Formats: sequence, C-alpha cells, structure tokens
Amino acid sequence: MAGYSVAPLLKLIEQFERLPGIGSKTAQRLAYFVLNMPKEQAVEFSNAIIDAHEKIRYCEVCCNFSEGELCPVCKSDRRDKSVICVVETPRDAIALESTREFDGVYHVLHGAISPLNGIGPDQLYIKQLLARLNDDTVKEVIMATNPTVEGEATAMYISRLLKPMGIKVTRLAYGIPVGGDLEYADEVTLARALEGRNEL
Amino acid sequence: MAGYSVAPLLKLIEQFERLPGIGSKTAQRLAYFVLNMPKEQAVEFSNAIIDAHEKIRYCEVCCNFSEGELCPVCKSDRRDKSVICVVETPRDAIALESTREFDGVYHVLHGAISPLNGIGPDQLYIKQLLARLNDDTVKEVIMATNPTVEGEATAMYISRLLKPMGIKVTRLAYGIPVGGDLEYADEVTLARALEGRNEL
Repeated sequence: MAGYSVAPLLKLIEQFERLPGIGSKTAQRLAYFVLNMPKEQAVEFSNAIIDAHEKIRYCEVCCNFSEGELCPVCKSDRRDKSVICVVETPRDAIALESTREFDGVYHVLHGAISPLNGIGPDQLYIKQLLARLNDDTVKEVIMATNPTVEGEATAMYISRLLKPMGIKVTRLAYGIPVGGDLEYADEVTLARALEGRNEL
Repeated sequence: MAGYSVAPLLKLIEQFERLPGIGSKTAQRLAYFVLNMPKEQAVEFSNAIIDAHEKIRYCEVCCNFSEGELCPVCKSDRRDKSVICVVETPRDAIALESTREFDGVYHVLHGAISPLNGIGPDQLYIKQLLARLNDDTVKEVIMATNPTVEGEATAMYISRLLKPMGIKVTRLAYGIPVGGDLEYADEVTLARALEGRNEL
C-alpha cells in the first residue's frame, strides 16, 4: 500500500471511513468511484455537502431542518397546530410523514436522554417545546420517541413536565409489526401487544 | 415526505444515492450524518472530493493514479523495471502491493475488454503498455487482470500482442484460495487447481 499512497486519494478514503457503517473496503470503493466521476459531478457532490450545511437551519418553531425561518409543516395552514408529535430526529418526522396519516405538527428533540452518552434534558430541544405550550392552542402532545430505553426515558421525562400543565400526553402504540410473524416477535413486544389488545 | 422536503438535504441524499452500493435508506443516513458534522469537518469532506479530482492524475509511465508526473513505484529505484504487472484498476495494484511480494512495476489498464459494455481495446491503456516495451529492459509481463470473462479476454488479447515481440507473458495462478474450504470451492476453480497442481 505504501508504494501507492497518493495523498489526496487517501484523504478522500479517510473522509468516507468517518461515515457511519462504512468500513475501509467500502470507503476505498466509494473514493475510487468519486475519483472516476466526471469533474462536474464531483463538484456537484462537493457543493451539496457545503450547501446542506450553509442553507439548512432549524425551524424556529419545531426545530426540524428548514431552509427558511419556518419549516413547510409549521408554515402550512392545513396542518392542525393543536397536536404536536414529539420525535427524536428529523428522520423520524420523515418516517411519520410518509404514513400520510398525521396532519398535526412536529417537534424535533434532536436526540434522547442518555446518561451513558452524557446527554441530559438540557442538551435536547425541550425548552423550545415548552415554549410552544404557553398559549392554549395545543391540546395533545404525542410522544413518538424511539421504543428504546433512551426513548422511553425521554417520553417519561417530558410527559411529567407536561401533565401538570393540563395537556394530554399520549404515546405511540406498542404491538406486533404489521406483516410480521408472531413466532419471531420478541417476548416484550408480544406482552405489550397483549396488554394493548383492542376489541374487534 | 413532501412536507419535509428541504431542498439542500434532498440534493445531498441524491448525491449519496449515486454511489455504488448505497441505497436510499443508507443515503439518508449518510446525508443526515454529514449534516450533523461540525462545519469544519464538512468543509474538509467537500474539499477532499475536489482535491482528489484536481490533484490526482495518471502516472506518465504506468497510468496508475499519481500526484506527480511519475507515481512512487515508477519513481523508485528499488523496483525492478524488467517485470511489469498488468492490472485492470489502481485498486488491484494496491491489493498486490499489500502482499509485499512483488518488487516489479505496474501497468494499469483502467478497465477490461468488455464488448457488452462497449469497451474495446482502444479504450484501455494498452498503447501506453506497448510503448514501455520498445527498449529491451522489460523481460516479463505478468497478466494480473481479474479471473472473469472480461479479465481473461483482456489477458489473452494482450498476450497475443506481446508474444511476437519476444516478451515472456505470464498469468497469475488459479487455484483454491488459502484458508478456503474444498467443499465450497466451485467446480471450475477446483478443476483449475487440479490442472495446476505442483509437486511437493
């Protein structure tokens, strides 16, 4: 390898290696692919990275990614501002949007409480959520944090803050995933599915 | 998704989707990761792409990637210039370098003959290889193209050009991979391993 260490190439490989889930072989493959791109495409790629950083900021209301002061959801007058769905990341909001079942608005926490990783409530965008609840427009807050220890803890923490304010706080239903196989569902999920059973 | 289409982010996701082996979910994950990087790191990444394109060119002798006129291998006086190992891509040269068993020089074809993909001998760096054989320094050319139909065809094509020039042309040995399991070796590989058996 030493004989062929072309510095700019090694640097590019290193950059790809930093990305999550990209090992050294994949990073090599990607770097060579980028190197073999037409120049214009490489410039486009390079600019897309900078543009994303320079043009994207947090929506002043919901803290989701946005190009302007307000994100398209908060700006829209077709969205029900009385229901806020609290998610950990912008990607969770996209996942919920893709169901086309939710017409409320979002609030992005940008993480979950995780003492092991040194992330406490102060590092999350919880203050901004509380600020949205001062007038009486909000009737319900749906906690849609992940079904993990961290997500649970965050949901519990926030619900304890909101309940004294007289706001209805709900949590996404747990249960067996649609299309899944009972046989392969883990016990905790199955137990939750039993617990939350509905009358037919 | 429509509600949250932040244009610069979508653009970045698209850029990642163009890379080989990166699906839309992975592209999303990578784009969000890049977006969450500190600004300096994103700038570094962006620059690495452009730098690789601007600073890397082909070595004037072996056509491998190089920062200067000559690549480190061709420049070195510790490499045996009488043996040329012909490979399809710079990555193949790196793989061979990592064995630390080869002290000759390389020649990179940048592809293999593949009529199905419209790649004929003229699109490869074969002329540059022939130009290296004009003086009498080169004694042996090792064909280290891939053990695929295209690689074979390329090896055959080049060996037919070189043999009339009185140059020894060799091919990498075929056989069972070290550490592999006979049981799982395909028949063609096994047959080649039998054919090429050596006395102990």
